Amino acid sequence: MEMDIKEQLKVAIDNKTKPLGALGVLETIATQIGTLQNTIRPTLNNPHIVVFASDHGIAIEGVSAYPTEVTKQMVLNFLNGGAAINVFCKQNNIQLKIVDAGVKADFEPHDNLFISKPKNGTANMLNQPAMTEDELKFSLESGKKIVQKIHQKNCNVIGFGEMGIGNTSSASLITATILNIPVEICTGKGTGLTDEKLKSKIEILQKVQAKHQTKTTEDILMNYGGFEIAQIAGAILEAQQLGMTILIDGFIVTSALLVAHQFNNAVLENCIFCTQSEEQGHHKALDFLGVSPVLKLGLRLGEGTGCAVAFPIIQSAVNFLNEMASFEQANVSR
Amino acid sequence: MEMDIKEQLKVAIDNKTKPLGALGVLETIATQIGTLQNTIRPTLNNPHIVVFASDHGIAIEGVSAYPTEVTKQMVLNFLNGGAAINVFCKQNNIQLKIVDAGVKADFEPHDNLFISKPKNGTANMLNQPAMTEDELKFSLESGKKIVQKIHQKNCNVIGFGEMGIGNTSSASLITATILNIPVEICTGKGTGLTDEKLKSKIEILQKVQAKHQTKTTEDILMNYGGFEIAQIAGAILEAQQLGMTILIDGFIVTSALLVAHQFNNAVLENCIFCTQSEEQGHHKALDFLGVSPVLKLGLRLGEGTGCAVAFPIIQSAVNFLNEMASFEQANVSR
Repeated sequence: MEMDIKEQLKVAIDNKTKPLGALGVLETIATQIGTLQNTIRPTLNNPHIVVFASDHGIAIEGVSAYPTEVTKQMVLNFLNGGAAINVFCKQNNIQLKIVDAGVKADFEPHDNLFISKPKNGTANMLNQPAMTEDELKFSLESGKKIVQKIHQKNCNVIGFGEMGIGNTSSASLITATILNIPVEICTGKGTGLTDEKLKSKIEILQKVQAKHQTKTTEDILMNYGGFEIAQIAGAILEAQQLGMTILIDGFIVTSALLVAHQFNNAVLENCIFCTQSEEQGHHKALDFLGVSPVLKLGLRLGEGTGCAVAFPIIQSAVNFLNEMASFEQANVSR
Repeated sequence: MEMDIKEQLKVAIDNKTKPLGALGVLETIATQIGTLQNTIRPTLNNPHIVVFASDHGIAIEGVSAYPTEVTKQMVLNFLNGGAAINVFCKQNNIQLKIVDAGVKADFEPHDNLFISKPKNGTANMLNQPAMTEDELKFSLESGKKIVQKIHQKNCNVIGFGEMGIGNTSSASLITATILNIPVEICTGKGTGLTDEKLKSKIEILQKVQAKHQTKTTEDILMNYGGFEIAQIAGAILEAQQLGMTILIDGFIVTSALLVAHQFNNAVLENCIFCTQSEEQGHHKALDFLGVSPVLKLGLRLGEGTGCAVAFPIIQSAVNFLNEMASFEQANVSR
């Protein structure tokens, strides 16, 4: 009887010149990627990180330590190569693409920029849903199309990042709704609020939650935004359909994954959780999904930096499987 | 008044286009290496990992899941490029050197092999001290000389690994003695003992401990070995003298570091703890030293693999400090 791919991978890994299980999480990752690619010789081809950027109407309520214009400024910083994500992608030979998914600014064309947005910034969800049904459809579709374009360039591993002043508020509301827990448990200091501002942020998010009826998964995104989170949810769903390995960053990208997971829980098979954010909402989300992150380095920057920093470890998992000698090849006694 | 280097590094890091502290442990590592090199522009030059291999007289007592000849076989595997450490060093552009520090075999000369040993294998510490005073002196000196040679090749970052069937027994005894805790707390399954064999291993180590008088730091190494651990202790001391960044691997290398730390507690300033081993003796040692590891991936392979897998993260720490734009350079609002 022929072995299935998981059994074949176990045999291949256990034959490597090392004690059984001695490469720990690297063995788990190698098994996951080998299973996805249905081979004991998986490869990571033309890795990409896509950073979706958008603005949030709620930012006017003072839920972030930074002003709205920082979203635009950081997109320019990404395009000019000066941000953390640029440094880590360059180091690890990862292609970096930026998506204007709804920034309150209009950018000049740039080789590494997709401009694909329904409008400049979501509505203020304290007063009305963050986006309309049409805007949601546009955003989910846009995320899918961008992944398709990148997949066509022989890319089979893709990470997602985000930039959007105010977007931890959306992530907190999405996480609280899907996990069905109080929003205050999912609300943290984001990029650096004071204790007083955090208290105010929680009160605002509670008001937002009371304002909206949230029955469907679509409602969650329409009510709470943001455009970048909706595009990432669409992107994750498409990457799963295409059999890609998906690198999940911190709190905000994980909130998009929670949404994608509501639409199709098979997405988890493709996801590697790269980093544990300091935001407690992220801890809750990872527990809910029953997953462990590769890195616990106290990163809380977003931009996909967790994916980029973790990438060499994922490459190490694939490499040991392809390159290590077996006991037989190396004449090592078991 | 001029700022000291730590203050200069804090200003440089806090000026980068990211929220304060948002790169977590990467900021800690950047500060450590910048302080060591006394510059806000540190570099990692010609990284090396040195794997010290040696055999252990105690192995005859059945304290390991593998037979003694595996030490020799794995050295040949290292020289032929088939082991996990080869794969990870190749991936991350790290030079790999192997030291025959006391293997029970004689090797042909090889470009990547230092042959520098007092004899083939330590004595069985169940009956007598693992090594004589002369053998200890030789081993400490050998470790130092090897580091000097590598440092002369413009290398400023060095990781240490080990290979030696039976060497978790030495590590357990060293750790228990320095931490002044019962040896059974520091004894684990090594490369994969059964529960029954673990019980027997603990009994043997208790007998070894009862056999010897251990008063000085030198006594610890002479009584418990092994040659590779003594050479690594010497190597760490020399690397610290030369101002190098030192990458510490798992349980056994950490036991060598514990010894080096007894000789000179300033070594800690140079050390980055790359990995948390599954061996509980390693947890105890890290707690004793008050340090946290970069990776917690359940690795328990040794060979310096934790250093090699963690290296890109350490490079990321240095890179963000050198390459990220400041708020001023990128015109980003604070």
